[in-house]
Amino acid sequence: MMPLDAVHTVPVTKIDAAAHRTETDDVLAAEEPLEIRLAFGQPSHPQVQNVAVTMRTPGNDAELATGFLFTEGIIQQAADIIDCHQALFACAENRENTVQIDLAPGVNPNLQKAARNFYTTSSCGVCGKSSIDAIHTVSSYQPEKGAALITVDPALFHQLPERLRVHQQIFATTGGLHASALFNLQGELLLMREDVGRHNALDKLIGAALQSELLPLNRHILLLSGRASFELIQKAAMAGISIVAAVGAPSSLAVQLAQEFNITLIGFLRNQRFNIYTVPQRVAVI
Amino acid sequence: MMPLDAVHTVPVTKIDAAAHRTETDDVLAAEEPLEIRLAFGQPSHPQVQNVAVTMRTPGNDAELATGFLFTEGIIQQAADIIDCHQALFACAENRENTVQIDLAPGVNPNLQKAARNFYTTSSCGVCGKSSIDAIHTVSSYQPEKGAALITVDPALFHQLPERLRVHQQIFATTGGLHASALFNLQGELLLMREDVGRHNALDKLIGAALQSELLPLNRHILLLSGRASFELIQKAAMAGISIVAAVGAPSSLAVQLAQEFNITLIGFLRNQRFNIYTVPQRVAVI
Repeated sequence: MMPLDAVHTVPVTKIDAAAHRTETDDVLAAEEPLEIRLAFGQPSHPQVQNVAVTMRTPGNDAELATGFLFTEGIIQQAADIIDCHQALFACAENRENTVQIDLAPGVNPNLQKAARNFYTTSSCGVCGKSSIDAIHTVSSYQPEKGAALITVDPALFHQLPERLRVHQQIFATTGGLHASALFNLQGELLLMREDVGRHNALDKLIGAALQSELLPLNRHILLLSGRASFELIQKAAMAGISIVAAVGAPSSLAVQLAQEFNITLIGFLRNQRFNIYTVPQRVAVI
Repeated sequence: MMPLDAVHTVPVTKIDAAAHRTETDDVLAAEEPLEIRLAFGQPSHPQVQNVAVTMRTPGNDAELATGFLFTEGIIQQAADIIDCHQALFACAENRENTVQIDLAPGVNPNLQKAARNFYTTSSCGVCGKSSIDAIHTVSSYQPEKGAALITVDPALFHQLPERLRVHQQIFATTGGLHASALFNLQGELLLMREDVGRHNALDKLIGAALQSELLPLNRHILLLSGRASFELIQKAAMAGISIVAAVGAPSSLAVQLAQEFNITLIGFLRNQRFNIYTVPQRVAVI
């Protein structure tokens, strides 16, 4: 069995082809930040260094840290590690999301020559809550309040994936690209960008919108060709987007952030059905 | 039209359900590192800082850099940017893969308070070639030479995705997880790990294999539930894996790295067909 916290159960509004609404529960893959710390040097006074923060599904965290250190070339063999534990730090909420690897005496981590460079962080901000709070602090646009809610006909959502496909040039040939597309409330495609990285496709789209002075995008629909991760909802929130529709599944933290920012988050938009995870009032259903 | 370098054409060996082989060409999504640099402060003596390296599909690089800086909270508005150009640096090969954003006088980038922490790099190692060379330097296992080639019956590959699905517990309920699975040459599933991040799923798998003293994994098949990016092939190379099969598409840089490390890379393993991108000799076809 997988650990219980690998999945989260959330309420969802399911919409079918006839625009009928069913309230039910849905099980999502959990997504939470994990900070990987390394302790090495003098066993009596070890040097503790934060080497990476990764957004992961909880479970097998010791394996994740071990594999990360090995595949990034920071350690060379299993024997380089003498202990691995969920580290206890001042921030209570962060406790479960930090793993510390203790290296054997005499092992020097290969931090300079690592195969690639990777995420670094200077602070404790790796709780989901801290990450969400940080976005509140830096975002130019605060969440739209209920009174200003726009509404969209559900039939319009069903048409968006096909409109994206028509415009998605590279995907058709390679099968290997993520796309982000921006539609207006009439369902007209305004912008579309593709990339091997889903976060890059969205950054390209928002960069283009920013240059065209379209922000905030609070009268638009963002369509994602794949899954909706925390990272993508974070970027959407920064651009003031109020409706995000994904062809794939959302993660638990994506739903949490969408709720916090009053973003309508739709998932599994395919086969004439979709799920609404947050702020369903923007979808005008029967 | 998309820029030409957004796709790469590579030779491919296609295998059908009857194990027949066809040599042809395939078009892949290009994947290359982009370094985003920021110039700010005194216009006469600007401070230049590298803020991120991202693996992206070439094209719309200025938009990508602009969108990244905005969605990460480093700049606040379009007017913060006065220029954006492909920067010229000492390393010739790196030239096209660096973009420099010049901030308007008086604009201080919000690097400390950014919404999230992100990739940092201390060196020029952002050419694909440099990245590949770095892996050679730090990897514990060097590529297997031709004489030691193992061979696998193509019929065995067709069975792997279904064997993974049977074991993939969370995906079945959430639809939102990537999986990495390790099979022996008889097609038996030895290990399987899942995560919202495909790189995490593979790190968990390799971490478990390392702890079980299974490395190098040169008598095994790694199955990826989605696409094969550079990052995943890099991790596979570090673990000495010689056969990687992906249900989805590979990127161009993944193919390049697999070739360099003598890894057999299979893509689009579904519907009783697959494509072999590199080292097809390991697949015993008609």
